[in-house]
Amino acid sequence: MRKISVGIIGATGYTGSELVRILINHPGVTITLITSESRQGELFSDVHPFFKGIADHKLESLDNIENYNLDLVFLALPHGISMNFVKRFHDSKFKIIDLSGDFRLDSAETYFEWYQKEHVYPQGIDAAVYGLPEINAGKIRAAELVANPGCFPTSAILGTAPLLSGKLADPGLVIIDSKSGVTGAGVKAKTVTHFSNVNDNFKAYGLKRHRHTIEIQETLEKLTDGKTIIQFTPHLLPVDRGILSTIYLRPLVEVSETVLRETYHSFYKKAPFVRLRENVPAIKDVRGTNYCDICVNYDERTGMIIVISVIDNLVKGAAGQAVQNMNLMTGFNETEGLNQVPVNP
Amino acid sequence: MRKISVGIIGATGYTGSELVRILINHPGVTITLITSESRQGELFSDVHPFFKGIADHKLESLDNIENYNLDLVFLALPHGISMNFVKRFHDSKFKIIDLSGDFRLDSAETYFEWYQKEHVYPQGIDAAVYGLPEINAGKIRAAELVANPGCFPTSAILGTAPLLSGKLADPGLVIIDSKSGVTGAGVKAKTVTHFSNVNDNFKAYGLKRHRHTIEIQETLEKLTDGKTIIQFTPHLLPVDRGILSTIYLRPLVEVSETVLRETYHSFYKKAPFVRLRENVPAIKDVRGTNYCDICVNYDERTGMIIVISVIDNLVKGAAGQAVQNMNLMTGFNETEGLNQVPVNP
Amino acid sequence: MRKISVGIIGATGYTGSELVRILINHPGVTITLITSESRQGELFSDVHPFFKGIADHKLESLDNIENYNLDLVFLALPHGISMNFVKRFHDSKFKIIDLSGDFRLDSAETYFEWYQKEHVYPQGIDAAVYGLPEINAGKIRAAELVANPGCFPTSAILGTAPLLSGKLADPGLVIIDSKSGVTGAGVKAKTVTHFSNVNDNFKAYGLKRHRHTIEIQETLEKLTDGKTIIQFTPHLLPVDRGILSTIYLRPLVEVSETVLRETYHSFYKKAPFVRLRENVPAIKDVRGTNYCDICVNYDERTGMIIVISVIDNLVKGAAGQAVQNMNLMTGFNETEGLNQVPVNP
Amino acid sequence: MRKISVGIIGATGYTGSELVRILINHPGVTITLITSESRQGELFSDVHPFFKGIADHKLESLDNIENYNLDLVFLALPHGISMNFVKRFHDSKFKIIDLSGDFRLDSAETYFEWYQKEHVYPQGIDAAVYGLPEINAGKIRAAELVANPGCFPTSAILGTAPLLSGKLADPGLVIIDSKSGVTGAGVKAKTVTHFSNVNDNFKAYGLKRHRHTIEIQETLEKLTDGKTIIQFTPHLLPVDRGILSTIYLRPLVEVSETVLRETYHSFYKKAPFVRLRENVPAIKDVRGTNYCDICVNYDERTGMIIVISVIDNLVKGAAGQAVQNMNLMTGFNETEGLNQVPVNP
Repeated sequence: MRKISVGIIGATGYTGSELVRILINHPGVTITLITSESRQGELFSDVHPFFKGIADHKLESLDNIENYNLDLVFLALPHGISMNFVKRFHDSKFKIIDLSGDFRLDSAETYFEWYQKEHVYPQGIDAAVYGLPEINAGKIRAAELVANPGCFPTSAILGTAPLLSGKLADPGLVIIDSKSGVTGAGVKAKTVTHFSNVNDNFKAYGLKRHRHTIEIQETLEKLTDGKTIIQFTPHLLPVDRGILSTIYLRPLVEVSETVLRETYHSFYKKAPFVRLRENVPAIKDVRGTNYCDICVNYDERTGMIIVISVIDNLVKGAAGQAVQNMNLMTGFNETEGLNQVPVNP
Repeated sequence: MRKISVGIIGATGYTGSELVRILINHPGVTITLITSESRQGELFSDVHPFFKGIADHKLESLDNIENYNLDLVFLALPHGISMNFVKRFHDSKFKIIDLSGDFRLDSAETYFEWYQKEHVYPQGIDAAVYGLPEINAGKIRAAELVANPGCFPTSAILGTAPLLSGKLADPGLVIIDSKSGVTGAGVKAKTVTHFSNVNDNFKAYGLKRHRHTIEIQETLEKLTDGKTIIQFTPHLLPVDRGILSTIYLRPLVEVSETVLRETYHSFYKKAPFVRLRENVPAIKDVRGTNYCDICVNYDERTGMIIVISVIDNLVKGAAGQAVQNMNLMTGFNETEGLNQVPVNP
Repeated sequence: MRKISVGIIGATGYTGSELVRILINHPGVTITLITSESRQGELFSDVHPFFKGIADHKLESLDNIENYNLDLVFLALPHGISMNFVKRFHDSKFKIIDLSGDFRLDSAETYFEWYQKEHVYPQGIDAAVYGLPEINAGKIRAAELVANPGCFPTSAILGTAPLLSGKLADPGLVIIDSKSGVTGAGVKAKTVTHFSNVNDNFKAYGLKRHRHTIEIQETLEKLTDGKTIIQFTPHLLPVDRGILSTIYLRPLVEVSETVLRETYHSFYKKAPFVRLRENVPAIKDVRGTNYCDICVNYDERTGMIIVISVIDNLVKGAAGQAVQNMNLMTGFNETEGLNQVPVNP
Repeated sequence: MRKISVGIIGATGYTGSELVRILINHPGVTITLITSESRQGELFSDVHPFFKGIADHKLESLDNIENYNLDLVFLALPHGISMNFVKRFHDSKFKIIDLSGDFRLDSAETYFEWYQKEHVYPQGIDAAVYGLPEINAGKIRAAELVANPGCFPTSAILGTAPLLSGKLADPGLVIIDSKSGVTGAGVKAKTVTHFSNVNDNFKAYGLKRHRHTIEIQETLEKLTDGKTIIQFTPHLLPVDRGILSTIYLRPLVEVSETVLRETYHSFYKKAPFVRLRENVPAIKDVRGTNYCDICVNYDERTGMIIVISVIDNLVKGAAGQAVQNMNLMTGFNETEGLNQVPVNP
């Protein structure tokens, strides 16, 4: 198989580490460059000792990036930092997949409203393609800059897209009650992720104003006619990985569970990573993999639709989806290198 | 302090063990009798070794119950078994607090519909008082038979009662997304509670048909005018104790967060175990205690009310609430023996 | 009951919070003062929200300590800080229980060797009594300054004292393999206690040089004749609370399991918090309580003695033991206020 | 690559499921047959829903095994059952890798002593090769029947073999304090593995008489001259996967940490799955992989050697090692299909 040469910008976080976990076994990829400004000169396996003997790349500064003949670059940087990189290197010949939130929204104004930060590169917003392959594969194939979706949005949008796209459910109020593992909060030690604040515990956070709210809302609104209102509440699970979203929608037309399930099967018939389930999925069913498992239900007693959608936030919600996007952007088979089997238990 | 003499019927489960944990330090209670049919003859501390030196009562058969001069009896039996006990002993002079679901619903018909079991003692249903002190204290004081509420209903009803009772929210659709620790599933080893099926995992269960749905719905309907529809989805958390319910309601009148919070303060001003919180509570905030911590929020963007309510399912959701009911039924101070401080972490 | 007035110096850590959890229900204690330099002016329940309505003391600076008429003060400060407090206030009329490591060792030289810090108050070392009531109750009753033992040493010393004191086992090599919950590492967020570095994980730390090694060794050496050598290896468990030590000793004389168990029963016959167990105890058996559960075993095949000893590191390993010491120092019954029942599960 | 045809006998347990997880991506293997007596007729992905779309093999009875042209068969059966299979099929042309304990010990007498069961096929014991490739690769290559090592023995033997083989440490007393995840106890729900009995808990078990004791002792004794005595204590960690063994040995000659580490490097220089670490490894460092990470230490103060050894009990401790054995037995590269990267976190 031909090989492409890729760089990973930002090595110390979970996203960087997951990208290496997946790409190191991708038959069409050579990891040419891994950068870290804070740990440059050390080995990748010094930062993540479990990679010893597997990925012992020397970490470099991103300033050296143009010395390499890269085909594609993954940005595993915090939001607010990513946009500076894109601004600086937008004329380089490598394609870019940005895993931060910097290029996911529709305008610099909305970005400012939800991220409380001026966007430094609004042109990038216009150029970027939202990298959710199940609804955007065509544009992704042609893109030079892909905004890799957020973890909660991936779970929420895949869970509701068939209903809104098919005008089966009211977009006027979609209630998304999501529960996430702790890796979603990043690698850095914080009070909120201190073991004893999470273990045997559970809480909501980011009520009303979590940034993923607007990302979900803008993306779903494009699939439907009317105004879309998302009520999104994230919660912190005492687990490492995984997001489960429980989604409540009101049907617009008469429906049945059978009809709903057929709708989902039809919508996702070419989506290799969406698995439609008859029974409710658990987050460990997808751990370590790029799958999104979905179960749609209809409650005749109440007249409501209830969707359960699960992903691994670090894979389908980040690094795995980025590789899926890379496969589309560079002409590989969409599933290449993404044959991980769930690690369960 | 005067002492009353109590019996605990059913020693092997979590409810029985929590009752002993609380009552052993209650200054007005002597635990006269603990029964177990399967382990009779053994010590309570043989069944629960951590009680060694604390509660070494010999377990007896419930057949001996009338040899004791009991003031009150707690039934820590499975549903379906409890009703036989009540039927048999309804003429005894002891008061009864039943912790099962057998006497919580309004009719034998509804019981049959949701529990798939014929009720053997419908007269008990008529006699029983629903033991949620925050809304029913008067009746509980006079009761001979109290049906101690379910764990999910306690969390859900306390979280929404002020809104429905005050006609502030639409009872026509109340979405209750609840997350529970594993002890809610009982002490017996089952596949669903096998460690590796729960640890680092998360899933929904009982979609659409969980028995607590009807208990919540019937109880809330009594507080409001119109028809009440509850959409209830329980989930299994990888924690031992605790329930967090995230509740979504649509306001019927113009509201604000300030008004909502005043409503709750007013509704619960005499409720010693409800703590109204400005920030979202976590389940560990109430672990081991009889508190219910509630935070009510209003999202101006979407026009929805979001309530977060947390309890310890074994305490306020079971044994602690039973002791609170006992205090009311026997004339003790409502908080007597319930001064546990959260074990956190 | 008469009341004494106590102060807690250092409110933000787990030790301070556990002291309040226990003392707030102690019938002979008024918590007069809680200090915090970093959070002064706030309420104790602002720092620990789960204390809302239970302990809403205003936090003060320790500079105000002499405005209060305190009988006894608990120091819940980091080592290195505690010794400055003791130096400054050693002439005050209040007794002091120091929960740090500053006054546990025998000399300033040993302190320097193991803590890499000059001791500022060696006189305090001479004056301090090592506060392990099971071996030192007489001296503790008369003490003005008590050095509350470390968590690992409490578990290890109680597990081995009967053997070494009775000359039944060789002090020349005692292997102590200990496993601790995360709260032992303190309240502050660090990489090592980041949820995802601990959850579903397990590792050793502090090999060969953990400070508790010397504390165990010095204390045990006083109970025996010969030179005592401790090989101590701590490990980090993915749990909040609890220490389990597995201890391996070689007998000096012919022994049997029966003889060993009689020795322990005899040694601890007046120790209300040591529970001798026939079967191996688990850490949850003592969670939230001041118990130390011990099981001693003899392996005829190998000729070795194996002791299992468990405590709650925050209670018998810190705050509970401090209250037990307070009870002795101030003339209360040794068990007063320490009637907590294990929270299990 | 040429393909061999393999069968997996026993589909419902963790070992069967891990074998499929690994073999499904092995480039030289076709999984021709998966059997289950209790679930025959169902799909493998009905039993393990997370395999949906990945491994949807129909489960068959093992009675049909000779209808298939199998090169090699993995027995993922309980001990006591496996030996019947081997007895029945020892003349078949397929090679056998038995993952149970039935053929690991040296004699039927020892088997009876430690497993309390008559061995039905002692000839198999004589024929079987102990499948630890790091010490037995030559014999494994030629074997028709391999006894795949136990999980604890794998960790313990790899941790000590260089010392005993090199006569550096006293075989007369090797203390092995091991801590295992819950999957080691199997897939079946039992009280001991009920979530709330394990979560936030920790305990020892199998003191003095765990069956792996004799397996470790017999295997190590073959590497050294003198009598070998193993003191082995397993403990149950609240994690899914992983074993960490802390091993204490007394040196026979003057040693230093440098010398010890060189000894290990030399001993394992051709072992692709042993990673020698300068710092203590954690169990998550090898999760989901076939690695055994080892760190050897020398404590000059006490004169003792301390070894830390970690594996994933389901991979290097079971299914992964079985595949490594298969690779040797069938002429594949030893690492073929075993390129999994640790899933961490």
